[in-house]
Amino acid sequence: MRAIDVIAKKRDGGELSRAEIDFMVKGYTSNEVADYQMSALLMAIYVRGMSTRETIWLTEAMLFSGEVVDFAGLGKPRVDKHSTGGVGDKTSLVLAPVVAAAGVLVPMISGRSLGHSGGTLDKLESIPGFRTNLSLAEFRAALKDIGVALIGQTSEIAPADRKLYALRDVTATVACPALMAASIMSKKMAEGISGLVLDVKVGSGAFLKTEPEATGLARLMIEIAGSLGKRAVALITDMNQPLGRTIGNSLEVIEALEALKGRGPDDFIELCRTLAAEMFVLAEEVEDSLSGRALYDKMIVSGRAMDKMIEIIVAQGGDPGVSEDYTLFPTAGHTRPVQAAESGFLQSVDAEALGRASMVLGAGRERLDSPIDPSVGMRIEARIGDSVSKGATLATLHFNDSARANEAATVAQMAFSVGPEAAVPPRLVKSMLR
Amino acid sequence: MRAIDVIAKKRDGGELSRAEIDFMVKGYTSNEVADYQMSALLMAIYVRGMSTRETIWLTEAMLFSGEVVDFAGLGKPRVDKHSTGGVGDKTSLVLAPVVAAAGVLVPMISGRSLGHSGGTLDKLESIPGFRTNLSLAEFRAALKDIGVALIGQTSEIAPADRKLYALRDVTATVACPALMAASIMSKKMAEGISGLVLDVKVGSGAFLKTEPEATGLARLMIEIAGSLGKRAVALITDMNQPLGRTIGNSLEVIEALEALKGRGPDDFIELCRTLAAEMFVLAEEVEDSLSGRALYDKMIVSGRAMDKMIEIIVAQGGDPGVSEDYTLFPTAGHTRPVQAAESGFLQSVDAEALGRASMVLGAGRERLDSPIDPSVGMRIEARIGDSVSKGATLATLHFNDSARANEAATVAQMAFSVGPEAAVPPRLVKSMLR
Repeated sequence: MRAIDVIAKKRDGGELSRAEIDFMVKGYTSNEVADYQMSALLMAIYVRGMSTRETIWLTEAMLFSGEVVDFAGLGKPRVDKHSTGGVGDKTSLVLAPVVAAAGVLVPMISGRSLGHSGGTLDKLESIPGFRTNLSLAEFRAALKDIGVALIGQTSEIAPADRKLYALRDVTATVACPALMAASIMSKKMAEGISGLVLDVKVGSGAFLKTEPEATGLARLMIEIAGSLGKRAVALITDMNQPLGRTIGNSLEVIEALEALKGRGPDDFIELCRTLAAEMFVLAEEVEDSLSGRALYDKMIVSGRAMDKMIEIIVAQGGDPGVSEDYTLFPTAGHTRPVQAAESGFLQSVDAEALGRASMVLGAGRERLDSPIDPSVGMRIEARIGDSVSKGATLATLHFNDSARANEAATVAQMAFSVGPEAAVPPRLVKSMLR
Repeated sequence: MRAIDVIAKKRDGGELSRAEIDFMVKGYTSNEVADYQMSALLMAIYVRGMSTRETIWLTEAMLFSGEVVDFAGLGKPRVDKHSTGGVGDKTSLVLAPVVAAAGVLVPMISGRSLGHSGGTLDKLESIPGFRTNLSLAEFRAALKDIGVALIGQTSEIAPADRKLYALRDVTATVACPALMAASIMSKKMAEGISGLVLDVKVGSGAFLKTEPEATGLARLMIEIAGSLGKRAVALITDMNQPLGRTIGNSLEVIEALEALKGRGPDDFIELCRTLAAEMFVLAEEVEDSLSGRALYDKMIVSGRAMDKMIEIIVAQGGDPGVSEDYTLFPTAGHTRPVQAAESGFLQSVDAEALGRASMVLGAGRERLDSPIDPSVGMRIEARIGDSVSKGATLATLHFNDSARANEAATVAQMAFSVGPEAAVPPRLVKSMLR
């Protein structure tokens, strides 16, 4: 088999065989297929697409490029949640302790911030001392001890995905459903889970901008999970404005701790409750979503979710004092408002631009090796549909560098669109697929 | 400007600006744009295509990546011919001396064999001592002294093309009209010519298999030449069987020397006469094609073409004795026939397969660094439409390695298709575009 023939086949719109996909993924992982050949293939896949079959084969080739964790011996259901990425999405920080508090195992492998979207690992690391780079052995030990761990992709997990993701990032081949699905699922299927809840974001702050695209990706991921003998459900949820009221690492962890105490913005709490309910259903902890929602509330009100969060923080080396004393978090030196230029109703928000403005402040990274500042970010004061007066604060920037703050303020200002017509807030959960 | 944004624009079918194309070509030539980014762009161009405007800008960016020779000071018209590549095409070896013999300057930069197609440089190097790697200074001197030189692409000529061609060759992005046109024209426009005759091959042994594709490429190249102030004409010519009766380096040079003596197969002589006539017209040496054909015959019959060929051989270090004594050429140790398995008419020939069979014998190269054997190849004994009897010789292989000969014989055998119906020989010149 020759790489060039596989590339030519996909270039001309053909369907690749399992052997051809294996050959390319293995060859690329072992450096026998050159990066310039793989990038030509990725572009051909981006433009020509992949069948469901091809996508499943690609996922399996990437999954079996590394180690697959097996937690079946623990004898309990193991569920995780994965979000396709958005702005202000800190649900993992609430879901992991809530679901684990009910006795369900949660082996969660998360990502880092890239571009406009945040990353769970970066958020957690704003807790002083918190370690996310556990080895697979430490990951297994934590699951056994406290039933939950939040870690980063280790070198043993889907190495082909790490290499492919880095290449896609610099060759304009990220936003491709088949490649996105295979990347996500190759990591998630390696975690040793029995069920997966997918939060597929759609809107101005998501990678996918339309519901049909999001639904297509969701269906594809559910099919892949099924073909590997795992149960998955997907919720298509709104990302036309940041989730909750905060963007930025310390700010988002504080918002998540508040949610664990039963406080916080409706949209964020509601999404946590909805996703947790589906995780409970998949784990067969409850019979239906309604009972799952009740179990979520029980874990919050009883304080068991917060207790589990403190266990997680302690187990991963963090300072548990943060749960009561938010001043232990890195805090930005300055704040400044972004104000409405006219009166009216908030029509729409460019959530991606707000994510990018936060990145400019230092909360995110443009490249995988950029340093980040855990203290900076912004608080969102206005939601779509709100009536705002000229001069009202739309967002409050938290910053340390005033040049960056000027740039971020300009970007953020333009992200809010105010007009005279009444505007309807977007529906949070668009649909659910099983 | 960022490479990834240019890639994304072409990926989505957009038209690139001149600045974007310049940025990518300059960046790639200077190693600031990575090869994996350029290969993603090449694949996007292959699948999405390029407008004529974009192709002209790409040609100019590649042309001006290197030195552009200026022969205007010599005060004479300067013409060249370029073929898109086929099997058994040795016309350059006849055209260069014929046209130069009439006082027209012929600055000819040629290529090497790759895959199934032969290369003028490899053919010339079967003449003992013949050097094709002249420097630009030697090229200029030869033009001044004898009015003609046949050389390879130097490092000063279109370096972007050399790098891009090598990348296209390993990323399945060769057979793309815009990329082919830009590659050919960036080299030809650097030669210092005033006019160019394009021989666009179509058929089983050509890169383009259909007349519409060939016509499209021809029109594109004529437009590019026009935009750079050069006159060009294109002939769409048949490549459904090898041109002439020989494939292989020594064998083809001998056939060309025979043609310079007025002998040889009709199709080959006719194509040389047709192409030479258009070169004479472009050089304003004659008023029309008919007079150009007469001038071709005059150069042959008078012996002036052969005299010029001897001048070329001497100027480039070769042994001029080859013109009379063909035993001075490297000669293969053995021959064997490829025979018809049944009686009937020769219906069709897979000329690409015959080119590949010659490559297997050692006449061509699979990779740019493969060594070649100048002595091997084959003589074609049957033409499309010929009546053949079972056991008749279709081709005679000239070889040195019998294992290779077995493989080549199997490939060659299958390349000839004999059937009971009468078959019409293909028309040699399909059309002409100005």
